[in-house]
Formats: sequence, structure tokens, C-alpha cells
Amino acid sequence: MSTDLTLDLDAEAIALDESDPLRSLRDAFVGSETPLVYFDGNSLGRPPRATADRLSSFVTDQWGGRLIRGWDEAWMDLPFVIGDRIGALALGAAAGQTVIGDSTTVLLYKLLRAALDAQTAADPARVEIVVGRDDFPTDRYLVEGIAAERGARVVWVDVDPTRGVDADLLRAAVGPRTAVVLLSHVSYRSGFLADGATLTAVAHDAGALVLWDLCHSAGSVPVTLDAWGADLAVGCTYKYLNGGPGSPAFAYVAARHQATLVQPVQGWMGAADVFAMGPEYHPAEGMRRFLSGTPPVLGMIAMQDTLDLIARTGIGAIREKSLQLTGFALRVADGILDPLGVRVASPRAEAERGGHILLSHPAMRAVTARLWREDVIPDYRDPAGLRIGLSPLSTSFAETLAGMRAVAEAVRAEA
Amino acid sequence: MSTDLTLDLDAEAIALDESDPLRSLRDAFVGSETPLVYFDGNSLGRPPRATADRLSSFVTDQWGGRLIRGWDEAWMDLPFVIGDRIGALALGAAAGQTVIGDSTTVLLYKLLRAALDAQTAADPARVEIVVGRDDFPTDRYLVEGIAAERGARVVWVDVDPTRGVDADLLRAAVGPRTAVVLLSHVSYRSGFLADGATLTAVAHDAGALVLWDLCHSAGSVPVTLDAWGADLAVGCTYKYLNGGPGSPAFAYVAARHQATLVQPVQGWMGAADVFAMGPEYHPAEGMRRFLSGTPPVLGMIAMQDTLDLIARTGIGAIREKSLQLTGFALRVADGILDPLGVRVASPRAEAERGGHILLSHPAMRAVTARLWREDVIPDYRDPAGLRIGLSPLSTSFAETLAGMRAVAEAVRAEA
Repeated sequence: MSTDLTLDLDAEAIALDESDPLRSLRDAFVGSETPLVYFDGNSLGRPPRATADRLSSFVTDQWGGRLIRGWDEAWMDLPFVIGDRIGALALGAAAGQTVIGDSTTVLLYKLLRAALDAQTAADPARVEIVVGRDDFPTDRYLVEGIAAERGARVVWVDVDPTRGVDADLLRAAVGPRTAVVLLSHVSYRSGFLADGATLTAVAHDAGALVLWDLCHSAGSVPVTLDAWGADLAVGCTYKYLNGGPGSPAFAYVAARHQATLVQPVQGWMGAADVFAMGPEYHPAEGMRRFLSGTPPVLGMIAMQDTLDLIARTGIGAIREKSLQLTGFALRVADGILDPLGVRVASPRAEAERGGHILLSHPAMRAVTARLWREDVIPDYRDPAGLRIGLSPLSTSFAETLAGMRAVAEAVRAEA
Repeated sequence: MSTDLTLDLDAEAIALDESDPLRSLRDAFVGSETPLVYFDGNSLGRPPRATADRLSSFVTDQWGGRLIRGWDEAWMDLPFVIGDRIGALALGAAAGQTVIGDSTTVLLYKLLRAALDAQTAADPARVEIVVGRDDFPTDRYLVEGIAAERGARVVWVDVDPTRGVDADLLRAAVGPRTAVVLLSHVSYRSGFLADGATLTAVAHDAGALVLWDLCHSAGSVPVTLDAWGADLAVGCTYKYLNGGPGSPAFAYVAARHQATLVQPVQGWMGAADVFAMGPEYHPAEGMRRFLSGTPPVLGMIAMQDTLDLIARTGIGAIREKSLQLTGFALRVADGILDPLGVRVASPRAEAERGGHILLSHPAMRAVTARLWREDVIPDYRDPAGLRIGLSPLSTSFAETLAGMRAVAEAVRAEA
């Protein structure tokens, strides 16, 4: 590469960091003072520094101090309080439609079952579940399993691996037999950002319900579920919401569906009167019916620090920085990785770009291993994909440039 | 009450505390220095003092320091490592049969579905699920829901409310149509301790599988699943294992069933090769197939402090203290509560006594509210039941006496 290009990229990174209104927030995260480059905040977000204290004081003051009284005083409502907060700050969801509980997989199972069963009951011809063939494994495996147990049929949507399910592909897949469509808002590999409003409308035009998987968008890309007219959504809190490894997921059910959808994992927390402990299960009104077991309170504590940060900045500013980060990463890739045979396997248009980009090269598995040894942490996805996740609150442009340069060195060494 | 009795009880509490080999462990728990009486460790255990630090250093060193590398280095195995530890220390389960994940409700759903589907597939006549009519709501609601969705039939076992399902009742309920029996080892209301070996044999004699609910026994009553020949078990970690509010549950599947049982919530963590992310779901070998989503790592951290304590003391010593605590509580009840019309609604025989006792009186709802205002914390269960939970690691005999005296005062005030 030319010295000019190197100097230009350095100057650009410095200028972008200097003009970044979110710049100081990076210091709020554990490890931001180290030279480690973290390109995996889209898989496990860094902890805010405040989180260690928040958790230890929760243990001492809340759990230890309030003991079982904590349930009455605060924790019973926590799944709804934090759910509503995520809804308001990141999902465009009015209150009373979002709840925290279970894992993404379990929530997807419950909502998919609820939606399929309701659709098939209303119209026995509606027995098809539409899902992308390139979607995250859990989504595909769940659909496969549910179809087998309910006698439904899976309609697989084949996609260009550098993109995801778009309106044309969806239009060709849905019809009078479609019960539910499971869609990824941001594709876990390519980073393709789907058009939420348009795809929801396409599904609705065919009489189908839509379940959105928001795992790779919540907290980095604005989601406007109410405005889309979305039916259902599930997403993850340990990526851009920095809830910690395995923190519980969230579920959204549009208010108009809450009285009719019933999920199959009937536990005490979903019952109409939790402490009556009556003889029969009657599902609660509202979002509580989508809960099953005791809410994972300890797992909900950490994410509140990142929600505080989102409340300060607004999701719009986060999206702006995200686009600047991915835009800069694409320019660096074009400048120093393209000459080495590395291809960008993500959409370039801003409207189709999520919070991470995928770089493709036959040596990427070895490149990833080498980078990890050098404290540059992206992740690898078959086949031959290096994912560069750029978490807007905790990633700087200088860090991005340093990491991309390390990728170039590693490709040179391993190719 | 006579002054003699008062002096006798004081002397007995002092003597019991002095000779208690676990006495010093009480100091290991947050709040043990306060006058608060905690009778609800069977609902939410107190946090060990070490837990606040364990969690905050997990955030900083593990999550913050290792970031996504933590999955490869430790967290992927954590559900099995901690599961095996619970298995060895508290469940009498050899390694490779216990795993942590999801809530009790979700794990019960998955195992009950797996067992019912396998039994019905092997013998289409086996379509009955046997469960106690007085069991914990989640157990009953789940069975009701699964029966409805799978076309199975519920056989309800009626029990004396001061006891639980025993061998005679079970023998009368099972037969050639029984697929699965769901049994509580310790009843959540009465504290009745079931005979695990005998009830397992009764179910097996009828060709049924047994799923044990260990929520109210794990960590206070020795469980010997392998010796019983048990098939399946699920239990809770936030009661006697002090995992924190809503900490994830554990599941046990006997080695001989692991290759044949398949649970319905097919997610990426249960797949044979998690990171291959291949086109089709193939369940993993061993216990991993009973997982669905990303393991709730943050929720598994706290319980390790109590496992350390159990490793030091042994479950046998814990059970001995538990029997002494409940025995003492029964003597105090006979001495100072029986004259006030309060009835013991729990078994008295040691072989049938779990870690808590139930006291019955028409005024118990108001009594509970009054006690809470005075920092004496039992819980109330309909109808008219006051549960006195006596967590062996964190409860003293003096605390027990003080709390029982407060119950007497409250009954006098409210009756």
C-alpha cells in the first residue's frame, strides 16, 4: 500500500474520532484503555465499568437486604419495566408490548408456536412457515422442529449470501398457505439490514404474521416495530445491549395480538393470578402470558447500564456513528484489504447496512486464530468469513483502523 | 405459656447453636449480623458474602477481560461443569448427567415433552401423565398444557394436604397407560419428603418414566438419583443453592436415556456441532442436546459460592442440621403455638420431613403481613398456611426461636 494511503487513513481516523459526539462514552467500558481491538461487540458486548458495582450492590442491598420482599417491591415488574425501556429506547415499541425472559431460542419457540397455532386455527390451510435458508441456526432449527411437531411445512428462502431476505424474495415465498414469516432484521453473517416496514407489509398482504429476529440490530440500528405494524419480535441483550454472557432475551407482541395468542410453555409466571396458585392455568392479560418460569432477575441487572447510555445519546446518534464506523471500515477494506484478495461480503448501501461487515478470503479461519493471539478479536463464520463487529458506543475509529491493519498483516501471513 | 417453657426453649436454642458444627457458616451470609429473621431461604436463599465480589470480578476479569474468548475458554462448558458439581454434591448423580440452563418451568417442559413423546412412540397406549393435584402450579399447568397439545391425558393424584404423593397413592395411579410420572421430592406446601427410591420403583414397575421436581430438596435434603434409578429430574438453584433471584435451573437425564430422548426446543446450543451452524438440526450427544439457547452464564456465577460451602460440609451434615432445625421448630410449635390454635400441617417423622414446615391457622394471611413489618420473613401459602423455611447453612436455632415467638405474638394480635 502507498504511504499516502496510510497517512490518509490515519488522518481520517483521527478526524472521525475528534468529531465523534459519542467519543467519550468509549471510556465508560471495561478494557477501553488497553490496546486490545474488539470487533465482536455484535456477539458479546463489552461491560460498562458501572456494571461491576451495579451487580455487587444488587447482591448486597437488593437480594441480600430485601430478600424475598424484593419480588413484591420490584422484581415481579422488572421484566416489564426493562422490557418497556428497551421498547422505548431501541425498538419503537409503545409500553406494554415488550418483556424480558428466557433465552432468544426459547422465546422464539414460544412466539412461533403461538403464532402458528393461532393462524392454523383461524385458517387450516395456513400451515407454512417461511424462513431464510441463511438465517441464524437457532431460527432454522426451531422452524424445522416446530414444523415437524405441528405438521407444518417449512418454506426456505434462498438468498445471496452477501445479502438477506428482501421484499422480492419474500413476495415470491408467501401466499395463502403462509402462517408465519420469521425474518432477521440484520443478517448474522452478511450484516444485511432488511426493510422492516416493507417486509412486514409484504407478509401482511399475504395474510401472514411476522416474527422479527432483532438479535443483530437491537441497540445499534433503530427498530420501529409499532410503525412497521410488526406482529412479534424477539431479540438478544448480550450483543449491543451489553447484558453479559447469556443474559436473557426480550420478546415483543403487538398489543392487538396479546389477547389471542397463547404460548405452550404454561408456567406459574404466565398465569392470570401468579400467587393464587389455582387449580387451572388461565393465561394472564397482556405480556405476562408470554412468561413461563421465575424471571431471571440477576441476568437483567447488567443491561441497565447500557440502557442508561442509550437514553443519554439516543438511538439515532448511535446509528449515525454505526454508519460512520462501517463506512470507514469499508473504505479501509477497499484501500488495504482488497489488494490482498479480501472481498467485502456485506451490502454497501447505508439503507442495507447493519452494525457489522463480513470480509471474505479463503484463509480467514487461520487469520482469525492469528488475530486472536495478537489481541485483535473479530469472529469467524463459515465459509471463509471474518466478521467485523463495530459496537457504536465502545468502538473508536482509531481502534477500527488498527484492527483492520492487523487483518491485512494476518492475511499476508496466512495467505 | 409458662416461664419454665420459655427458659427451656432458650436453653435448648443456645445448646443447639453451641453444638452445631455448621454454626460459623451463618456468618458467611449477607445480613446474618442483623436481627432480621429469615424463614424464606426455601424460596430465595440469602447471598453468601463472597458473591458480590465473585460477580464483580467476573464482570471485570472474565467478561470484560476475556470478552468473547471466554466462551471457548470456559463458558461453553460451564453448564456441564456446574451441573456435574451440583450432581456430585447434592443429587447423587455421576458426571455427565446434569446441566444448567433455562428456568425450572422451561426445563420441565422440555423433559416432560421428551419423555412423553418417547413413551408414546414406543407404546401408543401410554398417553397418561400422572401428577399430584397439590403440586406446585408450574408442574400442574405444564402437564395440563402438554396433555392438551399432545393429546395425552392427565391423571391427578389427590393427596392429604399435610402430606404428598406416597407409594400407595402412586401405585393406585399408574398402570399400562402411564407414560410419565411427575413427582415432587419435597412438597412445596407441606414439606412432605417423598421416598425417592420406592416411588421410582413403583413407576418403573408400571413401565412409566419418572421426572423428579427437586426444587424444594436440592441443597437441603440428600438426593440420590442414580441410586434411585431415576430417569429425569429438574430443580431450582435460587432456593437452598442461593443462586440469586431467578437463577437458572438444572436438569438431570440418566445416561441410559440420553441417546433416545429428544426435546422440542431445537436451538443452536443443543446441536451436535454448535459452531458448524449446518443446514439441519442434529441433536448433540449427551446432555448438550437438552440445551436450547445461549447458556445463562451471568446467572450461574453466584451459586458457586454455596457449592463451595456444600463441598466443605457435605450434604449429610446439612441434612442433619436441617432435621435438627425442623425438629426444634416443631417442638417450639407444640409448646407455644399449639395452645393458640396453630396446627402443624407437615409430616413429623424424620423420614418424611423436608427442609420447611407449614403452620396452619385461619389468620395466617394477616399474620404474615404483620411479621413482614417486624422483619420476620416467612411466606404465606393458601389456604391459611405459614411456611417456615429453615435453610441449614444460614439459619441459627436462636433465629428460629425468635421467629417462632414472633409468630406466636402475631397470632395473638391477629386471631
